[in-house]
Amino acid sequence: MRQEEKRNRVEEAIRSFYEEKTVAPHLVDSVLYSIQAGGKRLRPLLLLELLEAFGQDLTDAHFQVAGALEMVHTGSLIHDDLPAMDDDDYRRGQLTNHKKFGEDLAILAGDALFLDPFGMIATSQLPDTVKVALILELSDASGSRGMVAGQVLDMEGEHKQLTLEELQTIHANKTGRLLAYPFIAAGSILELEADIRQLLKQLGQKLGLAFQVRDDILDLVADFEALGKTPQKDLVAEKSTYPALLGLEASKALLERELDACGDLLDQLVAICAFHPQAIKKLIEGLRIHG
Amino acid sequence: MRQEEKRNRVEEAIRSFYEEKTVAPHLVDSVLYSIQAGGKRLRPLLLLELLEAFGQDLTDAHFQVAGALEMVHTGSLIHDDLPAMDDDDYRRGQLTNHKKFGEDLAILAGDALFLDPFGMIATSQLPDTVKVALILELSDASGSRGMVAGQVLDMEGEHKQLTLEELQTIHANKTGRLLAYPFIAAGSILELEADIRQLLKQLGQKLGLAFQVRDDILDLVADFEALGKTPQKDLVAEKSTYPALLGLEASKALLERELDACGDLLDQLVAICAFHPQAIKKLIEGLRIHG
Repeated sequence: MRQEEKRNRVEEAIRSFYEEKTVAPHLVDSVLYSIQAGGKRLRPLLLLELLEAFGQDLTDAHFQVAGALEMVHTGSLIHDDLPAMDDDDYRRGQLTNHKKFGEDLAILAGDALFLDPFGMIATSQLPDTVKVALILELSDASGSRGMVAGQVLDMEGEHKQLTLEELQTIHANKTGRLLAYPFIAAGSILELEADIRQLLKQLGQKLGLAFQVRDDILDLVADFEALGKTPQKDLVAEKSTYPALLGLEASKALLERELDACGDLLDQLVAICAFHPQAIKKLIEGLRIHG
Repeated sequence: MRQEEKRNRVEEAIRSFYEEKTVAPHLVDSVLYSIQAGGKRLRPLLLLELLEAFGQDLTDAHFQVAGALEMVHTGSLIHDDLPAMDDDDYRRGQLTNHKKFGEDLAILAGDALFLDPFGMIATSQLPDTVKVALILELSDASGSRGMVAGQVLDMEGEHKQLTLEELQTIHANKTGRLLAYPFIAAGSILELEADIRQLLKQLGQKLGLAFQVRDDILDLVADFEALGKTPQKDLVAEKSTYPALLGLEASKALLERELDACGDLLDQLVAICAFHPQAIKKLIEGLRIHG
């Protein structure tokens, strides 16, 4: 299935959830505004490409799990942008949720996007054991032991000089856990062997690191148009970033190295099981920064 | 088991979840500050008393499910109190979470309390089918089809004259769904017959309505000390309330009527199954307002 179609079906899964039984129409408007703002859909695409790489035909249930992951991610962006947090006016080139709908509705839209996805997974056509595993891992990756913890540490690290190790702990939680989720979730859905799951987990972690290094580089070098949001926010907030700690060139080299390592892990997967790495390789290659 | 012990074990279940694997200590401080602020623990107690009323011995899993429910409820209180929402400085007689920890940490503490409980249920020692049912219903009761929708409608209803029907829709979602959750959850945990579940569901709905009528009356007539928060906020926000729509005396009569109806439903349960209503009856009687 083509990437474009995958993206559409993830959005469709989310949209039908919200349009199926609407209690508060403005809440749904606010939620879907941020969902439909687009973005690369990297996390859901990683999950869907992984499933196909293992030869799995995609079903509605897979799009619902991918959608649930995107919902949690989108909820975190809405709350991140709030005045009391990063105070951003633009995201993906359009007004942030609170700028468009007001702070109260933005808080509640984020809340809905945290509470709803677990029900969406619970109603999907998958075995109960698989659903429980997917829900457990999504909760763990996103809550006080994952993403939210990373956001707190990130906030506390502003205006402070962090060590590289501290920076990595922040990012491993703030962005790493949800980026690694597709790799864990694919293992649960396909009920894969432990050694394959182990490789997938490593791959997810490396990719998470690469993604954050890339994000820090782009925040520094890209302009508003390319970024869709205010650039150099990290500098303004005096945040420790990879370029700040390592220098720009060394950060670019680190990114290359991590992406190469992802390629090696994909080769290892191919060596031990029936795995077709082309599409997932392309997604990962798409994270390289040229020039 | 005595109520006091039940309360302690619910708090213990929540505390051990947060202390077991702490990534961001200040986040945990902020979460536990609001959890330990107390409150009546009405929702978890209803679940635990219901389970015992059906002759079920309580296990750790039951306290985890009760704790998960209290976590979602507490998260909603933290977000409700935020400046962009109700802007409250006090809750249960102590500073609200954002007054104590700052708005950013309060937002993230609420987020954690929405994301974590699903993992807590997923790890409990219950059959997978039961866990999936409990997670589905908690998500549905709290997210965009339940509590959060009710909060949006409530917010939109400020400074407006609502009909009694609109007011009931708001409350059925905003507070009713989580108050009815113990009755649904008990049915899932004990895998009860459909007719018993139907009675439990009605009981939960009636209790939810009674609770909200009571809350509206208390907001009007109680002082800060009795309420633990600023009274007459509804009047200030020009909110439609039961006393505003029906008058104080008629609201009190409605409360009595609904609580009487709960008693009748308990009698019906006793007539069709082995059900010991004493403790749950006492909890419900505790909601009467005297004088």
